[in-house]
Amino acid sequence: MHFVDIIEKKKRKEVLTDEEIEFWIKGYVDGSIPDYQVSALLMAIVLNGMTDEEISTLTRCMMNSGDIIDLSSIPGIKVDKHSTGGVGDKTSLSLMPMVASCGVKVAKMSGRGLGHTGGTLDKLESIPGFSISLTEEEFVQQVSDIGIALIGQTGNLVPADKKIYALRDVTGTVDSIPLIASSIMSKKLASGADVIVLDVKYGNGAFMPTMEKAEELSAQMIRIGQSFGKKVAACISSMDQPLGNAIGNALEVKEAIDTLKGKGPKDFTELCVVTGAVILEQAGVGTREECIKMMEDSISSGRALEVLKQLIHAQGGDERVVDDPRLLPKAHYVTKLKSYRSGYVHDLPAKPLGILAMNLGAGREHIDDVVDPAVGIVLNKKVGDHVNRGEELAFVYHNKPLEREWLQRFYESVELVNEPFEPAPVIEKVI
Amino acid sequence: MHFVDIIEKKKRKEVLTDEEIEFWIKGYVDGSIPDYQVSALLMAIVLNGMTDEEISTLTRCMMNSGDIIDLSSIPGIKVDKHSTGGVGDKTSLSLMPMVASCGVKVAKMSGRGLGHTGGTLDKLESIPGFSISLTEEEFVQQVSDIGIALIGQTGNLVPADKKIYALRDVTGTVDSIPLIASSIMSKKLASGADVIVLDVKYGNGAFMPTMEKAEELSAQMIRIGQSFGKKVAACISSMDQPLGNAIGNALEVKEAIDTLKGKGPKDFTELCVVTGAVILEQAGVGTREECIKMMEDSISSGRALEVLKQLIHAQGGDERVVDDPRLLPKAHYVTKLKSYRSGYVHDLPAKPLGILAMNLGAGREHIDDVVDPAVGIVLNKKVGDHVNRGEELAFVYHNKPLEREWLQRFYESVELVNEPFEPAPVIEKVI
Repeated sequence: MHFVDIIEKKKRKEVLTDEEIEFWIKGYVDGSIPDYQVSALLMAIVLNGMTDEEISTLTRCMMNSGDIIDLSSIPGIKVDKHSTGGVGDKTSLSLMPMVASCGVKVAKMSGRGLGHTGGTLDKLESIPGFSISLTEEEFVQQVSDIGIALIGQTGNLVPADKKIYALRDVTGTVDSIPLIASSIMSKKLASGADVIVLDVKYGNGAFMPTMEKAEELSAQMIRIGQSFGKKVAACISSMDQPLGNAIGNALEVKEAIDTLKGKGPKDFTELCVVTGAVILEQAGVGTREECIKMMEDSISSGRALEVLKQLIHAQGGDERVVDDPRLLPKAHYVTKLKSYRSGYVHDLPAKPLGILAMNLGAGREHIDDVVDPAVGIVLNKKVGDHVNRGEELAFVYHNKPLEREWLQRFYESVELVNEPFEPAPVIEKVI
Repeated sequence: MHFVDIIEKKKRKEVLTDEEIEFWIKGYVDGSIPDYQVSALLMAIVLNGMTDEEISTLTRCMMNSGDIIDLSSIPGIKVDKHSTGGVGDKTSLSLMPMVASCGVKVAKMSGRGLGHTGGTLDKLESIPGFSISLTEEEFVQQVSDIGIALIGQTGNLVPADKKIYALRDVTGTVDSIPLIASSIMSKKLASGADVIVLDVKYGNGAFMPTMEKAEELSAQMIRIGQSFGKKVAACISSMDQPLGNAIGNALEVKEAIDTLKGKGPKDFTELCVVTGAVILEQAGVGTREECIKMMEDSISSGRALEVLKQLIHAQGGDERVVDDPRLLPKAHYVTKLKSYRSGYVHDLPAKPLGILAMNLGAGREHIDDVVDPAVGIVLNKKVGDHVNRGEELAFVYHNKPLEREWLQRFYESVELVNEPFEPAPVIEKVI
């Protein structure tokens, strides 16, 4: 088999066989197929697409390129969740304890933030002492013992995806549903859960620009999951504005804790309740309506908060932060950003706000940048809210002086209008 | 400027600016842009195309990536010819002396053969003593002195094309009109001639599969040439069967000499006369009809043969081969391939016959293979000819025993029919 023939086939929009896709992934991981050939194939895939069967085979070959986590020793249904990422997305921190408090096992590996998007690991690490590094044995043991673990990737999971993703990033081949879907699903499938619920974002701060694209990606990932006999569902939600009010690691941990105390932002609480209900429903716990009730109860009863405490304790963190969030890292300065005029907030675009938070030190511009856990932005107003002249739009938590140019970019990103309007719902669709 | 943005633009089918194309070619030649990024762009170009302006800019940037031959010190019009290559294509050997014998200066750099196609340099080198290596000064001097030089590439011409072509070859990005046209034309323009006539082949043994594709490529190359103020024309001819009867280096030199003696195969003689007339016409010598007459006269008068002798002498070869072709390298064995049945030759496909000749040693499978100048195939029948049972279809000139599997492939490639028919003309169109 010659790899150039495989490239030629996809260039002619033909369907690749299982053997051809296996030859590609195996050869790329073992180094016998060079980057410059793979990037040509990737571009042909971006432009000519792949069939469901090809995507399923690609996912399987990537999954099999490294370790696969075995959760079978843990009794009961194990669930996992994946968010396509966004600004202010602290969902795992609140949602997973809510789900675990209902007796469903949560075994989740998360990632770090890059660019304007944050990462769950960075948020967890802002809790003093919290360790995201567990061995596979420790991970399985903790899920068995307390029903939940949130860690960084353990073992050598999906090395093919690591290599292909790095190449896609520098060859303009990121925005392809077959490549995105197989990348996400190969990692989720290698992580071993029975139920996978996808939190797919669209809009300004998300990788998918439109609701339609997000729906297409979701449907593709569900079809992949089904071809592996897994239960997969997707919640499609807007990332036109940041999720919740807080952007920045310790600030988001505090907001996640507040949410489990019933004092969270409306949009974020709703997303957690609905997504959690979809997870429980997929796990066979009850109907959607019953599960929504259970999720609401997990907050009002204080049980989810208790699980979060156990989780923090089990992974070496200081669980007192749950009762006293002042124990989280604090920024030296807090600056109020007041509105220059009255009006209704019409636009609060997630991407520029994510970049502004990153510039404060809350995120990484480059993969080896160091994150400052204390800094970030807390929005005082969200899209649809009324603001008076002189009233705070947001609070900035920072450790270095704010530059004039930074402030200018903040004010340029916020758009006010005179007339009130009905803001779009956070969750658009569950499929 | 980031190269990944250029890839993204072409992926979205947008038009690249002059600055972006310059950035690409400069960066690729100086090594700052890696292969894996260029191959992704090449695939996007194959699938999304380029505008005339982009193709013209790409050609200019490639041309400017290395030396440019200056023929301005030679008085009069300098002409060049390019064939897209095929099987039995010894056109330059007969045609260029015919043209030079009419007083038009021929300054031509040729290439070597690879795969099933032959190369003019390999054919010239089968003449004892013939040197294809001249310095630029010697090249210019010889064209001034005797009106003709046929050499290998001198100087560092179009290094960008060398690098891009090598990458295209292994990334499935060869068959793209913008990339083929800019590759050919950048080399022709860097070679300095005023008139460029393109001999574009289509069919079984050619790079262009159909007449339509050949016409499209020709039109593209003419538009590029015109954007540089050059006179460019194209003759589109069939490569469904080999050109002439001989395939193999010394065998083709003999056939080229025979043609200049008026004893050449009909199809090959016609191609030389018409292509030569187009060259003279473009050079302003006369009308097409007058030029056809001049080309015929160049043969019947013996003047073209005389020029070939001068050319061989000037480049150190033994010009006695013209009068006595037995001085050319000879194979140890000649095997007659007789027909097993009577009929009319319907199919004599160029590509398998080219590969059969290559297998004898007449061509290269790999770029560093050594060519045997003596071996090859001389067809005794061409498409449309009648053959009796037991009559020779071809003569094989070989230096090692013929294998049964080779003979089997030969007979499988030849197709006979019972009814006579009118074969297609060799030249389809002049544009």
